Amino acid sequence: ASIMVKEGPAALPSPGTPTALPILKEFLNQREHLNSESDHSHADDDAHLYNMPEYLTGYHSLSEKIQSRIESNDKFFSLEFFPPRTKGGAVNLLARFDRMREGGPLFCDVTWHPAGNPGGDTETSSLTIAGAALNYCGLETMLHMTCCNMTKTEITKHLKRAKDIGIRNILALRGDPPHGAEDWVPPEDGFNYASDLVRHIRKEFGDYFVICVAAYPMGHPEATSYEDDIKYLKEKVDAGANFIITQLFFKAQTFIKFVRDCRAVGINCPIIPGIMPIQSYDSLRHIVKLSKLDVPQDIMDFVAPLKDNDEAIRNYGIHQTCMLIKELFDAEMAPGVHVYTLNREVATTAILKQLGLWAAAPRRPLPWKMAANHKRSGEDVRPIFWASRPKAYVYRTQHWDEFPNGRWGSSESPAFGELKDYYLFYLTSKSSKEQLLAMWGESLESEQDVWDVFHAYVTGTSNKTGKKVTKVPWNDDELSSETSLLKENLADFNKRGVLTINSQPNVNGASSEDPVVGWGMPGGYVYQKAYLEFFTCRENVDALLNILPLFPRINYHILNKSGSADFSNCHKHRPVAVTWGAFPGTEIIQPTIVDPLSFKAWKDEAFGLWEEQWGKLYPEESRSREIIQYITNNYYLVNLVDNDYPKDSCLWDVLESMFAWRKLQEEKSEDQEENNLCICTQ
Amino acid sequence: ASIMVKEGPAALPSPGTPTALPILKEFLNQREHLNSESDHSHADDDAHLYNMPEYLTGYHSLSEKIQSRIESNDKFFSLEFFPPRTKGGAVNLLARFDRMREGGPLFCDVTWHPAGNPGGDTETSSLTIAGAALNYCGLETMLHMTCCNMTKTEITKHLKRAKDIGIRNILALRGDPPHGAEDWVPPEDGFNYASDLVRHIRKEFGDYFVICVAAYPMGHPEATSYEDDIKYLKEKVDAGANFIITQLFFKAQTFIKFVRDCRAVGINCPIIPGIMPIQSYDSLRHIVKLSKLDVPQDIMDFVAPLKDNDEAIRNYGIHQTCMLIKELFDAEMAPGVHVYTLNREVATTAILKQLGLWAAAPRRPLPWKMAANHKRSGEDVRPIFWASRPKAYVYRTQHWDEFPNGRWGSSESPAFGELKDYYLFYLTSKSSKEQLLAMWGESLESEQDVWDVFHAYVTGTSNKTGKKVTKVPWNDDELSSETSLLKENLADFNKRGVLTINSQPNVNGASSEDPVVGWGMPGGYVYQKAYLEFFTCRENVDALLNILPLFPRINYHILNKSGSADFSNCHKHRPVAVTWGAFPGTEIIQPTIVDPLSFKAWKDEAFGLWEEQWGKLYPEESRSREIIQYITNNYYLVNLVDNDYPKDSCLWDVLESMFAWRKLQEEKSEDQEENNLCICTQ
Repeated sequence: ASIMVKEGPAALPSPGTPTALPILKEFLNQREHLNSESDHSHADDDAHLYNMPEYLTGYHSLSEKIQSRIESNDKFFSLEFFPPRTKGGAVNLLARFDRMREGGPLFCDVTWHPAGNPGGDTETSSLTIAGAALNYCGLETMLHMTCCNMTKTEITKHLKRAKDIGIRNILALRGDPPHGAEDWVPPEDGFNYASDLVRHIRKEFGDYFVICVAAYPMGHPEATSYEDDIKYLKEKVDAGANFIITQLFFKAQTFIKFVRDCRAVGINCPIIPGIMPIQSYDSLRHIVKLSKLDVPQDIMDFVAPLKDNDEAIRNYGIHQTCMLIKELFDAEMAPGVHVYTLNREVATTAILKQLGLWAAAPRRPLPWKMAANHKRSGEDVRPIFWASRPKAYVYRTQHWDEFPNGRWGSSESPAFGELKDYYLFYLTSKSSKEQLLAMWGESLESEQDVWDVFHAYVTGTSNKTGKKVTKVPWNDDELSSETSLLKENLADFNKRGVLTINSQPNVNGASSEDPVVGWGMPGGYVYQKAYLEFFTCRENVDALLNILPLFPRINYHILNKSGSADFSNCHKHRPVAVTWGAFPGTEIIQPTIVDPLSFKAWKDEAFGLWEEQWGKLYPEESRSREIIQYITNNYYLVNLVDNDYPKDSCLWDVLESMFAWRKLQEEKSEDQEENNLCICTQ
Repeated sequence: ASIMVKEGPAALPSPGTPTALPILKEFLNQREHLNSESDHSHADDDAHLYNMPEYLTGYHSLSEKIQSRIESNDKFFSLEFFPPRTKGGAVNLLARFDRMREGGPLFCDVTWHPAGNPGGDTETSSLTIAGAALNYCGLETMLHMTCCNMTKTEITKHLKRAKDIGIRNILALRGDPPHGAEDWVPPEDGFNYASDLVRHIRKEFGDYFVICVAAYPMGHPEATSYEDDIKYLKEKVDAGANFIITQLFFKAQTFIKFVRDCRAVGINCPIIPGIMPIQSYDSLRHIVKLSKLDVPQDIMDFVAPLKDNDEAIRNYGIHQTCMLIKELFDAEMAPGVHVYTLNREVATTAILKQLGLWAAAPRRPLPWKMAANHKRSGEDVRPIFWASRPKAYVYRTQHWDEFPNGRWGSSESPAFGELKDYYLFYLTSKSSKEQLLAMWGESLESEQDVWDVFHAYVTGTSNKTGKKVTKVPWNDDELSSETSLLKENLADFNKRGVLTINSQPNVNGASSEDPVVGWGMPGGYVYQKAYLEFFTCRENVDALLNILPLFPRINYHILNKSGSADFSNCHKHRPVAVTWGAFPGTEIIQPTIVDPLSFKAWKDEAFGLWEEQWGKLYPEESRSREIIQYITNNYYLVNLVDNDYPKDSCLWDVLESMFAWRKLQEEKSEDQEENNLCICTQ
């Protein structure tokens, strides 16, 4: 379009331009050193999925996540475990899941052994362990499934149960024949080969499951030839598998050649190398047995002389594995690494740290530990009450059809399930009864003894008998660093009978990268309202109800065990935000709220823990037990929110005023019974 | 329970207590003067509904709102209007609705006159005016409905249409017989009496509508007796009416007696007195005619000598009405007052202000003007683009099934309807064509002329011909006080061809009661990300795309009219929060976002306004028109968000860098055509 445009008056001189020019020149010089191709079409965040929390991106399958990591050249690792034999072993394994999750594995998988009732309901079954990893330990989880000794119908049944639990990934194997059966005979109405199993899963479940298959870089021991084995691998992939994990191998070149041979016949999906850390001399023999491979002579030469020095062998194994994987990474032949952990931790963690794959600092997409179940992928807000008990929360809400996203909402929240068995093994304390008695008191003489235990826990000091109190029934771990910010104040009040079980300081626009209070994506600002939750006696509650109107910026809610006493200045159904953050490029995230209805569901759990975890340590009818029961039946659970987060928290003033009010009442009262039920006065 | 509790060691002395005691004593002394009965059961917010925005409380019917005001003794007012005769009258009436809404009426109502096609589709029909008041002016609205000359079927049809539009309240009347009909004969299949109409509405629509009925404190002119008329009123109420509005009256005692007589026969619903301000001598005669009442002699004695001095009469009327109502309020006989405005403003507003009923300062529950349609009661988040055009937004989204609450969400937003007719009368400019030409230029010679108009608008100064520019096609009002904060910077850039149509400053935790940027409930803190939206030429856009990567904290989106050019660094579907607030006792409110999909729907409207409102002022083929068309087809619409709201906004640096980059390019380029299309360079 050619329009004659009359020259207008010179634009006003802009004060900024003379300075802006040299600065801009410098910027532009710098930029020439950067990537010059800037694509301004919509930024494809899909390439950086792993940076974005799932409540923002929506659920992405393991297949998509692997693809994303490949595209951004961000190496990953995965961990394989086997189901333990005992319940104690299961408890330990879950604790191991929690610890190893901190390193940021892309997924974990759980093996399947038909002889061990892998699809059953026991704490030690493959299905239960896989479900716990997914739901209670927040790990993307893959379940192995074998064809051996199962009919199509049985297999479908197990897969349906896996689907119900929320599992989205299956490693499809033929499996090992039962012990002693030399010639494997597939069952009637069963499968001959893993490729049949893959086809069956696709037929019955469509795209619901991501399917992985196994490969043997040196060829399967029972294969007719290496080339035939690769052809068979292609069949498995063509039947519908998404990616491949290999058996272990000893030389980088083995894997490199194998990958090239796969690509040559048209196998194009991701191929992940498997490694098995050498833990000891015996484990080397274990490796040989499991893999049916011959250990290369140079490795045997090094290891044999050290057969009494397991630590040296382990260190050698760590070094050797790192060199191997590093060679694959440098050759750009592997997108990540899959570790056969044999349920052990030390060597695996050391290898991953040396390779630089272990997350430097644990990332917190949200202040609370997220579950990995795809049904919960949009979940980004929870009541604060379960901050120390996320597994209990997941358990009690597992039946919900949908999970709150964005806001908790003001309608009645759906019902919380009950914790059927307080010894639910997911929540079993890692401490023995003896250890708990040592920490909490072999015997209790008074309420003050109970208060002293809380005091010792909060301060991290020893109790009367010199034992460090590292947990309480409401928190199986030591105080978080965030709560430590409040330690001094908490300690004093606990000693005086304000038994705190949950708290957070106020935060006014801290960086989302703050090491103590930060969470979510970088570049944001996080906020918190000061919060305190505690058990205390009736006299204190009476005092509180009198002085709280002097603190209109406080929202409070007070309940007793039965719920017959219910005091609050909150709107019946309105939740109060207590943690939120503002980030670049997104809406406001508000991950934690205080909600009157959920508090009622929580109090049953909180009151119950007195008896279930502490009271039951003592004989029935003992004084110690009576003291715990007395507290359960006569104390109240109180939560306080200080809405004025930019100001210093006034919660301590509230508590001081509470005690001061009681003192005033005593000064007024002339009668004071000798046998006061509660001597929580000064 | 009597448990022997051993006395524990004295609690640690608390450093706070000695100081706390005297302070607490003082507090408690003060408190004794306050209401001693503090009910700590859940605070019943229902008694204070009018303080809480609807997106928090949910929709409450007019009946509930009236009850709530009665319970809290918070007097209210309502306004009655009649449908205008001309389209121009309708435009003026809507502007009057907007202005009078600032005073905080509890509801307004619109009369129904069968002769005027009240249920039709025209701009002037009762139904259209009532719908506009509800949807476009944010007023709780009641529609009159009469029985005269309509069959049951016709009445039901009208009520259904009212329901579709969102109206929830009906004033059920018999109505006046058609002019000249001495004896009223109801139609076949019609209604005799208002009580029949009330019954019919309840039968056909259940509780959907709140129903009001009229009463005559001095008895209906056609009633057999005063007592019979009250009996008949009771029939109407028993048939299902929720409250009563009375005809006007002249003496307080008239109304007081009437209310007592109603209560004596068991009429217990709210009774609201109606008043009609005297505007002039003629209006007094109008009153007599409408009400069929005799004006009391003392009033006639005062007014008659003043019959040539309308202002004196109006002042007398204001005084007289205020005394009347005040007497009713002091006697606690009226919950509020209903004003027959006769579509006029001055006397009504004066009376309500004198009575202290007119809102002191306009409250902003949200930064944007809310609609009153119950279907939108949960709506609390909108894209920022329609900040100056809320009516257009309501129009284009009226068909949505549900409205965003809490979050905008990341799924595809539903489709926006088109603005069928840019002259849609709801959006018709209040200025005439002559006024617009005077402000925007009788003729345009260059793009700079257009830029100068923007500059004059932003600075509030006169244009070339000495005319103050008080509006632009995208904003029918003068700059808001909030935008005035940015005036200097905006002015300079507009002059240079950055044609801003929307902006907001960054705000970091200002009080929610701040007079300029505050909104929502008191005691909260509000936040904003700095935002800028403007039209500009291609050369500037090219420069922007080069320098924006130097400002990673900026989210941007750039579109041309057709959408063929679409540049952004936002995730395709993810909205960005630009306004939010944290308040006591609630979740985070996030009322304004920037959303890529909505921006595409908005740009059609924004680009269209060039031609529809400005271009069309000029003859076809004129240079002025061509310039506007050139801009429409060649300029781009840009929006910028500065995510780092705690820091000073860098948006001006972005624009300076844009111009600096262009200058650099020119210095590099040796060829420069004489006839540059765009001389927006320095």
